[in-house]
Amino acid sequence: MKKIAIVGISGYSGLELLRLLHGHSEVEIDGVYGTSNIGTSLTSIFPKLAFFPEYASLTIKAFSASEIMATSDLVFFATPAGIASELARELILADFPVIDLSGDFRLQDVNQYEKWYKKSAIHSDLLSKADYLLADFDTPQQNYISNPGCYATGTLLSLAPLYQSKVDLIAYDSVIVDAKSGLSGAGKKLTDSSHFVNVNENVSMYKLNQHQHIPEIFNKLKSWQNQTLPIQFTTSLIPVNRGIFVSSYAKLAKNITFEQVVSAYHELYDDKYFVRVFDQGHLPDLHQVVGTNFTDIGLDYNPLTNTLTVVTVIDNLVKGAAGQAIQNMNHFFGFDEKAGLDLVPIF
Amino acid sequence: MKKIAIVGISGYSGLELLRLLHGHSEVEIDGVYGTSNIGTSLTSIFPKLAFFPEYASLTIKAFSASEIMATSDLVFFATPAGIASELARELILADFPVIDLSGDFRLQDVNQYEKWYKKSAIHSDLLSKADYLLADFDTPQQNYISNPGCYATGTLLSLAPLYQSKVDLIAYDSVIVDAKSGLSGAGKKLTDSSHFVNVNENVSMYKLNQHQHIPEIFNKLKSWQNQTLPIQFTTSLIPVNRGIFVSSYAKLAKNITFEQVVSAYHELYDDKYFVRVFDQGHLPDLHQVVGTNFTDIGLDYNPLTNTLTVVTVIDNLVKGAAGQAIQNMNHFFGFDEKAGLDLVPIF
Amino acid sequence: MKKIAIVGISGYSGLELLRLLHGHSEVEIDGVYGTSNIGTSLTSIFPKLAFFPEYASLTIKAFSASEIMATSDLVFFATPAGIASELARELILADFPVIDLSGDFRLQDVNQYEKWYKKSAIHSDLLSKADYLLADFDTPQQNYISNPGCYATGTLLSLAPLYQSKVDLIAYDSVIVDAKSGLSGAGKKLTDSSHFVNVNENVSMYKLNQHQHIPEIFNKLKSWQNQTLPIQFTTSLIPVNRGIFVSSYAKLAKNITFEQVVSAYHELYDDKYFVRVFDQGHLPDLHQVVGTNFTDIGLDYNPLTNTLTVVTVIDNLVKGAAGQAIQNMNHFFGFDEKAGLDLVPIF
Amino acid sequence: MKKIAIVGISGYSGLELLRLLHGHSEVEIDGVYGTSNIGTSLTSIFPKLAFFPEYASLTIKAFSASEIMATSDLVFFATPAGIASELARELILADFPVIDLSGDFRLQDVNQYEKWYKKSAIHSDLLSKADYLLADFDTPQQNYISNPGCYATGTLLSLAPLYQSKVDLIAYDSVIVDAKSGLSGAGKKLTDSSHFVNVNENVSMYKLNQHQHIPEIFNKLKSWQNQTLPIQFTTSLIPVNRGIFVSSYAKLAKNITFEQVVSAYHELYDDKYFVRVFDQGHLPDLHQVVGTNFTDIGLDYNPLTNTLTVVTVIDNLVKGAAGQAIQNMNHFFGFDEKAGLDLVPIF
Repeated sequence: MKKIAIVGISGYSGLELLRLLHGHSEVEIDGVYGTSNIGTSLTSIFPKLAFFPEYASLTIKAFSASEIMATSDLVFFATPAGIASELARELILADFPVIDLSGDFRLQDVNQYEKWYKKSAIHSDLLSKADYLLADFDTPQQNYISNPGCYATGTLLSLAPLYQSKVDLIAYDSVIVDAKSGLSGAGKKLTDSSHFVNVNENVSMYKLNQHQHIPEIFNKLKSWQNQTLPIQFTTSLIPVNRGIFVSSYAKLAKNITFEQVVSAYHELYDDKYFVRVFDQGHLPDLHQVVGTNFTDIGLDYNPLTNTLTVVTVIDNLVKGAAGQAIQNMNHFFGFDEKAGLDLVPIF
Repeated sequence: MKKIAIVGISGYSGLELLRLLHGHSEVEIDGVYGTSNIGTSLTSIFPKLAFFPEYASLTIKAFSASEIMATSDLVFFATPAGIASELARELILADFPVIDLSGDFRLQDVNQYEKWYKKSAIHSDLLSKADYLLADFDTPQQNYISNPGCYATGTLLSLAPLYQSKVDLIAYDSVIVDAKSGLSGAGKKLTDSSHFVNVNENVSMYKLNQHQHIPEIFNKLKSWQNQTLPIQFTTSLIPVNRGIFVSSYAKLAKNITFEQVVSAYHELYDDKYFVRVFDQGHLPDLHQVVGTNFTDIGLDYNPLTNTLTVVTVIDNLVKGAAGQAIQNMNHFFGFDEKAGLDLVPIF
Repeated sequence: MKKIAIVGISGYSGLELLRLLHGHSEVEIDGVYGTSNIGTSLTSIFPKLAFFPEYASLTIKAFSASEIMATSDLVFFATPAGIASELARELILADFPVIDLSGDFRLQDVNQYEKWYKKSAIHSDLLSKADYLLADFDTPQQNYISNPGCYATGTLLSLAPLYQSKVDLIAYDSVIVDAKSGLSGAGKKLTDSSHFVNVNENVSMYKLNQHQHIPEIFNKLKSWQNQTLPIQFTTSLIPVNRGIFVSSYAKLAKNITFEQVVSAYHELYDDKYFVRVFDQGHLPDLHQVVGTNFTDIGLDYNPLTNTLTVVTVIDNLVKGAAGQAIQNMNHFFGFDEKAGLDLVPIF
Repeated sequence: MKKIAIVGISGYSGLELLRLLHGHSEVEIDGVYGTSNIGTSLTSIFPKLAFFPEYASLTIKAFSASEIMATSDLVFFATPAGIASELARELILADFPVIDLSGDFRLQDVNQYEKWYKKSAIHSDLLSKADYLLADFDTPQQNYISNPGCYATGTLLSLAPLYQSKVDLIAYDSVIVDAKSGLSGAGKKLTDSSHFVNVNENVSMYKLNQHQHIPEIFNKLKSWQNQTLPIQFTTSLIPVNRGIFVSSYAKLAKNITFEQVVSAYHELYDDKYFVRVFDQGHLPDLHQVVGTNFTDIGLDYNPLTNTLTVVTVIDNLVKGAAGQAIQNMNHFFGFDEKAGLDLVPIF
């Protein structure tokens, strides 16, 4: 039984880790840490956890790298931007296992980080200790795992077969990704844009051409396909609690048929448990994946415009955050990949 | 005071006509007609109208062209596909004023109609008597007005300045329109896809590459710009009652700047009361327009991908149906364009 | 044309006044005042008003009683609790017409106010200058009109025929009111309980036995019926933007039949335009009234428990706030009661 | 490993059984049966199950009591009203284990059944073979288990300590239960009242004084407390997918204090894992229980009206249907009560 610490428990990703780890038989949570609310019991923040024995006794402790290293086997950071890079230094230097759900280590290039996050980056020596692990493709090489962003996960899984293909399947300058997300993706912050009345019965586009997941998507695509060009990526808020719906469009490359594209998706994904490619004529909706770690993908082609459409859905808090983090942990410890994640969708 | 008849009152467009015409001081409804529920009082179908004096006495009468022509000045068809083309023949031959909210006369080409609607078209002699009137641009020439579809309206208003421009502003083969609609756009039919549990907390894409508004969009763009190529157009259902949110993408043509595009939008729309172009840095959301006849438009440009983004919102039942029909009627009778339509959005 | 000032424009009630007064032909808004955001244009707070000529030029001015009295004919206070009682003194002393949508003058008893609002009350000499006007029953006697609370309005209209009856129709110790409200009733404040994710797919009961509308309900019932006893009143939040749904229960008094109760409702309400009593077997839902000033009422009786059920629905922002305020204004100025309020419900 | 059959798989309760049993380590589903869609694969009805190995091979078989008895250890009926009573006769005569989620065997009195269900009842000899088992209180005595209705479960758990108490805690003629339910409680049927546009942004009361759960509630209360009188019970639909929110009101009996009532709740429930009584000052909301088998309860008292308020929340598909059925099955087979049901709530 591995012992797990969590830093930053009060946000949605932290809560989702607690929900999922409750069903994981190979780990136990032995400490929750933070930088505020020290001494507060976990169950006073989340009354719905009050009756689970393993959570009843936990209180938030002041972050201490040495305590974590003394008592735990691995720590999750589920902290807002800028916190992990402040707190993790000691853990990195000691090569202690970390899975970081924040964006702090997703960009290895200091300038790129500072441009998109508008914050100072951590020193590049430390950045280079982190592996950006898209769990369905990558396995841990180092002890610091940077978990991908929710939009990045949905988008990369939507496009991977196109960019990992040996032949050029699409025109790289034609890619447009129109992604829609439920509100939990925007976190628990109290802002006008998270007030119920403003969100309900509404749709809005935000951070147009400025979303911080754009560079991590580009970097990963580039690592797969050297000819990668910038993609057009937009994000809209829709009035649901959970779920990301990614509509991707691309022109097929010359002489490429839709059947070749379909084959590429099946070839890449058919042996991956957590990615499910639908038969032609069927497209997934959010209900297919809510509450689970699945990524569901449907495909169609329009000969009039020579355009491929890829519809991809994930649960932003599971595959887009805590679920992928646990999948990465399962790989790290050599557990069954499905441990704690073998869940049927719930509507 | 003009007298108005309505055929097909029981759907959302019919109800919306009743809601809006209640506030129109120059017309009165003198008859509602249908092909079913004959003899049923209007207020038993819509209890919420029971206490409005002008609706209290109306009952659905069996459709009769001769009765309508004898007692009314104009008739709205708010009927499902295939009904207006069956019933309207006598009215057309007599050159009686009709505003048809259905799709029956939107496509003048019989083959195109039959391909996309999968129904027999009316004879092309009759089709040619109909004007497809996008109310912010077109004025009635003939007495049969074909009112545009909801998606078509949002999409055409989103793209008009790009296609009416004398210089080529965009690459015509690069246009992608990702449109999202609330449920009332799908009508009152009882289907699995309109059941609350299936729609709520969900998003789904439907009729991909097969939506019947695609040809009317193409035809209108082509009438503006001869180089028009097919556009990629997709529709997703979002869990709101009302509203269409259109995200349009296009590559700018060579040597065209974003400022030129912005100017084109202002030039075309600044004197149109019902189309509002937002200042740069601001994008509209559905709440801007719900309950009103406005079309709100925001613009942005991404130099990395050379892509223009146009965000356009309308209320699908007002601008996308009954409101535009009344705007067309106002033009037809020479009323103030805003009569019955001077409404502040309601959230 | 009467000139209207509004103090406190940035909340939902203020915005709703603007929406409704736009359609009122006998008044014009000549000034908006506040205690913060001075100098801010109205349309930068509410972009959706940006294109309405009468709002385009308004900016928020620092509150000035003397300026209001010099230029306007009546002022609405749509301010949070505690502001009107601070600002209105000069207006009251000058006997200037005020319609106050806040709770500051709803309770004439200083002790009662301080107990329920947990704030200092204004001096009782000033309190006594205010009339609490339930617009369907009361007409202005003095120049300071205290507009009822949203829950109070729904509850009082639900119960009025039972408490205004000359014979005792119910057991006064048996009344239970279970009221449910949409989120706009809780205002624009950013709190955990207004965050979309917490409200959506949820129901919660709040301020149980402590809601500040309880005493104003009791006082009004007592003014109608001297035997009035405290009623049990609870409020739950439901995930909709607008609407209050009031379920009231009471045991019938000895020898009273359901038919007598139904008659009492019709007798009291049949000549009131804005209150609509449904036929037996029909109960109203929120969609009957959203966007309008109507109060819709349905009745049923259970002989097994001798219990009357009264279902009452209003739009909390219209009948429960801005609409009733305008109805009161219409009475005050002697306008047609329906001016600005003759609206068909919108779903 | 016990083998389980399910009859009537296509509704929400059937799907929820599949979701929950996927996580149950002591049983496996070895057959799904129906009276329609024979031969249809399970995964074509529920695409979201397509990738779960144990469901991939199941197709709906024509109901056969003898096949079920030959191959399975227990059968769940998740059928609409009237089906189980038709099909189960042979199973009952053979004393084969059945857990029936429908209402067919909940009322042992033939006349009562026919009055409330408006259908013919099964013969009373067979009815008497069924145990109505509220899983937190009752354990199986016979082999036919009738699983309580969703509203009945929430209401009975809300009131149990008041009716199981040896001293009279409340006035039995004063009880009013105002229950609200999400839409999945109304099933998958396509009706106007389940159409998204009619439900969304709405609340409505239905089956007032006619709900078929009223008699099963009464019978169970009566079995606990002989002085039980009819209770006033109403049901409203709220726009959420899942959850029942029960607001119960009762006058305290003479000389009874609120503290005594609180003690009664703790005494009855503190050792029941699936019922959680909240500390005073805290009330549960739906998010506390969604996706789980918990029943959460909060209490308050109003001395002005001598009224106790009990707020009780359950997930209608889990505790109100499939979860309680599994809890009953766990008792029947002697499994750990929590098997398959040890879930953290999901928002």
